[in-house]
Amino acid sequence: ILKWWNKVKRVTGKAWEMGRSDPRKIIFSAKTGLALTLLSLLIFLREPFKDMSLYCVWAILTVVVVFEFSIGATLSKSLNGGFGALLAGALSLGMAELSTLAGKWEELIIIIFIFIVGFSATYTKLYPSFKPYEYGFRVFLITYCFITVSGYQTGEFVDTAINRFVLIALGAAVSLGVNICIYPIWAGEDLHNLVIKNFRDLATSLEGVVNNYLHCVEYKKVPSKILTYQAAEDPIYNGYRSVVESTSKEDALMNFAVWEPPHGHYKMRKYPWKNYVKLSGALRHCAFMVMAMHGCILSEIQAPAEKRQVFRSELRRVGCEGAKVLRELGNKVQKMEKLDREDLLDEVHDAAEELQQKIDKKSYLLVNSETWEIGNRPIEDEESDPQQEGKFLEHKSRSEAVLDLRTVEVPHSWDGNLTLGNNPATNASQNMSRKQISWSAHVYHHKSNAEVKEGQQQLKTFESASALSLTTFSSLLIEFVARLQNLVESFEELSETANFADPLEQQEPL
Amino acid sequence: ILKWWNKVKRVTGKAWEMGRSDPRKIIFSAKTGLALTLLSLLIFLREPFKDMSLYCVWAILTVVVVFEFSIGATLSKSLNGGFGALLAGALSLGMAELSTLAGKWEELIIIIFIFIVGFSATYTKLYPSFKPYEYGFRVFLITYCFITVSGYQTGEFVDTAINRFVLIALGAAVSLGVNICIYPIWAGEDLHNLVIKNFRDLATSLEGVVNNYLHCVEYKKVPSKILTYQAAEDPIYNGYRSVVESTSKEDALMNFAVWEPPHGHYKMRKYPWKNYVKLSGALRHCAFMVMAMHGCILSEIQAPAEKRQVFRSELRRVGCEGAKVLRELGNKVQKMEKLDREDLLDEVHDAAEELQQKIDKKSYLLVNSETWEIGNRPIEDEESDPQQEGKFLEHKSRSEAVLDLRTVEVPHSWDGNLTLGNNPATNASQNMSRKQISWSAHVYHHKSNAEVKEGQQQLKTFESASALSLTTFSSLLIEFVARLQNLVESFEELSETANFADPLEQQEPL
Repeated sequence: ILKWWNKVKRVTGKAWEMGRSDPRKIIFSAKTGLALTLLSLLIFLREPFKDMSLYCVWAILTVVVVFEFSIGATLSKSLNGGFGALLAGALSLGMAELSTLAGKWEELIIIIFIFIVGFSATYTKLYPSFKPYEYGFRVFLITYCFITVSGYQTGEFVDTAINRFVLIALGAAVSLGVNICIYPIWAGEDLHNLVIKNFRDLATSLEGVVNNYLHCVEYKKVPSKILTYQAAEDPIYNGYRSVVESTSKEDALMNFAVWEPPHGHYKMRKYPWKNYVKLSGALRHCAFMVMAMHGCILSEIQAPAEKRQVFRSELRRVGCEGAKVLRELGNKVQKMEKLDREDLLDEVHDAAEELQQKIDKKSYLLVNSETWEIGNRPIEDEESDPQQEGKFLEHKSRSEAVLDLRTVEVPHSWDGNLTLGNNPATNASQNMSRKQISWSAHVYHHKSNAEVKEGQQQLKTFESASALSLTTFSSLLIEFVARLQNLVESFEELSETANFADPLEQQEPL
Repeated sequence: ILKWWNKVKRVTGKAWEMGRSDPRKIIFSAKTGLALTLLSLLIFLREPFKDMSLYCVWAILTVVVVFEFSIGATLSKSLNGGFGALLAGALSLGMAELSTLAGKWEELIIIIFIFIVGFSATYTKLYPSFKPYEYGFRVFLITYCFITVSGYQTGEFVDTAINRFVLIALGAAVSLGVNICIYPIWAGEDLHNLVIKNFRDLATSLEGVVNNYLHCVEYKKVPSKILTYQAAEDPIYNGYRSVVESTSKEDALMNFAVWEPPHGHYKMRKYPWKNYVKLSGALRHCAFMVMAMHGCILSEIQAPAEKRQVFRSELRRVGCEGAKVLRELGNKVQKMEKLDREDLLDEVHDAAEELQQKIDKKSYLLVNSETWEIGNRPIEDEESDPQQEGKFLEHKSRSEAVLDLRTVEVPHSWDGNLTLGNNPATNASQNMSRKQISWSAHVYHHKSNAEVKEGQQQLKTFESASALSLTTFSSLLIEFVARLQNLVESFEELSETANFADPLEQQEPL
């Protein structure tokens, strides 16, 4: 009994937790209960509403079926269902007339019609563009069968049809009334919040990716959940995954939101919910770049820590500025304000350009560093145009030398990490190469047979691959920045169509 | 009237088209019609089954609600509903006993109980892990209210409950019987086919991306649908998009498939449908790389065509081998065979390594090409170890020179293309730079003020960025190859747990 009691306590605890984290769930449940209670009062009606009382089950049934979490969903189901029921009523009355004309073949005709109606309604409902109205087709079919069957039994088609329809309408009306009047839950608001959350998740994810990359955080073993794209604990992964995965949720919410009447902040006929989804799509387009950058961290081929440190400040700056832009846009969406400055992207573009220039200057670091020593570099440049470029390059090479020769502090997490090693092709050379990088220069001189040459070449290949990985990361980051432009455009389109407040105009009256 | 007739013709045409492309839809509709017809025969029953006949609507209602496309869905709905109805029946009978004890407070108690039951059922159903059983909760609620209300009216709780239950069970039984016996449609098979389709889509997409990249296909204007991640016409985009987007479909199918009894090729209790979804997740992990590669094509920063041509054969080989592996795996999944050779990945790994080595050898092409001219290269190398490397490098540099100096045939689509130009930061320099590349060397000598130096630097920055884009593409391709390993492992796990046939064993008896 104690065990049982503990279980009850645990379940209650969980239920309580759920209620606390989202009180709307409690309210929604109470609303459902209330709607049911209201309609079950019907059973106590006496004459002359005896009929109503007898069939009030239909109203209750409607509530259970139609009552949904958000108002949009409830409305779309009610209207769909109502339309379906009306159509079915009309059709079944017509069919009834027809079948009575048939005389003794009446039964056969009824049966055949049921088959035909069942077939066509089901077939039509499978057509892709009718998918949102699936529920309407179901109600249509139920109502048609019901009226036909009970009409046949009682001989009172019209009465049955009207009676049922009134009760269903009553059920729908009570559902809607309760749902809208008491603490309404709007799908549109949920969609709005989801978009804002996506912006923030991606910003967090972006910062996390850049930081982890710079701190050379490696996965000892990539969680298999990430490899098979399942939900995992990793916060960075979850950030962009939720953005990528929210498509279906957004579509569902949008389909409900378009049914909702203007309300609250969304005072406008035909509110452009579609643009929210579009904005979120543009955000997703950016998220794919963050995902690809995370791929650089997950990858087995890793750029050496020293090289990452060279680009440290630039990478970090781009990451921070990018996240800032995302947060700023998220806030603007939340406040429903237009952009108050034209130069939102200037900072991040500056940062990206700086990174790009740094890469350009240091591009020799990104290719095979052994063969491309800095000492040799100015020689060639002077060949091409010594008069003009000479001074400039001299300056450049000096500053580079300083950067390169200083001992870069390598974060501790890098040392002693296991390699991810799954890939047989690179695995053999990989474990080796990380350690060899430091002493490879010596080997070079000591051994001199063909085997070493071969090994040496492989080693270099791996080394250059690992350096290229840094290039990849940077290019992806720059591409991410480029995609922000498109995001801002989507936002502007949304802020125009949705008539967001202009923060500049608001300040003027002061 | 003619207009109306045309419309009818068009609609019929569409419906016919849908039926031809997926005949299962026609069969399913006919099955629904048949089930409805069978049950509506009940209304012609005479004594002693008058009761059955009177309430046969309940059986019809069950069919309409429960009859789903796949058997798994029908089964899960029926069982869920059945369980819900049973529980509700038991509970409502208990409550009825209780309320009669209350005497004159009976009505009040009934109402209060309806509220409590409605509240708790709705609240429980919102708990995330109960989501698959949502339908069961609905039936529970409907049944509870129905039995309570009609029991109160007639005073015959037990009779009502049993009568309804028998009819609902009959409806469910007919649905299941018709659905399973006549041309069954299995969710598991759909899932299986979806996974196979995903493999093929991705293979096509991969080939398309690599080919387009090598042919320098550029988007005159990136379709805004791609930028906001909506469905678009682009075949490459659609290939990987459908792989990425199939998550929710797979989950739904899996949830149905687990309800299905062993059948056809899937003769096994607890068939590991989960592993199919996992395999598809691993495939998705690869698809993200293809997506990122496509991003290189969509990007504004494009590698010059000549440089792409240098890596042409290697890139193409990796692309082809990668697609081959994907197709091979897809076929294995289709035939439900284990892998018949260990070296499935050898070819593609070889290809990737070759690409990697080529990149290594030509890495100077990937950085700023102006400052890193080929003529200067051997000089430095010889410095580091002239005795040993000399001969090797001489050979290397000669072959490179040949490759570089030959006039590379630039595909026509490259010339005269508009730039994508959206990004204000690079836009200014970008339009210019493509054209300037050829004559920049001249300008270099003619002007000599600070402004030109600045412009020159920007130009170089862009150039190096464009070359790095090629690096990015290659690294992503190599990372894609690395991820194939994980895909193969997922496949092996599936082939073990699902007991795929071993093609080697099958051949032995011969």
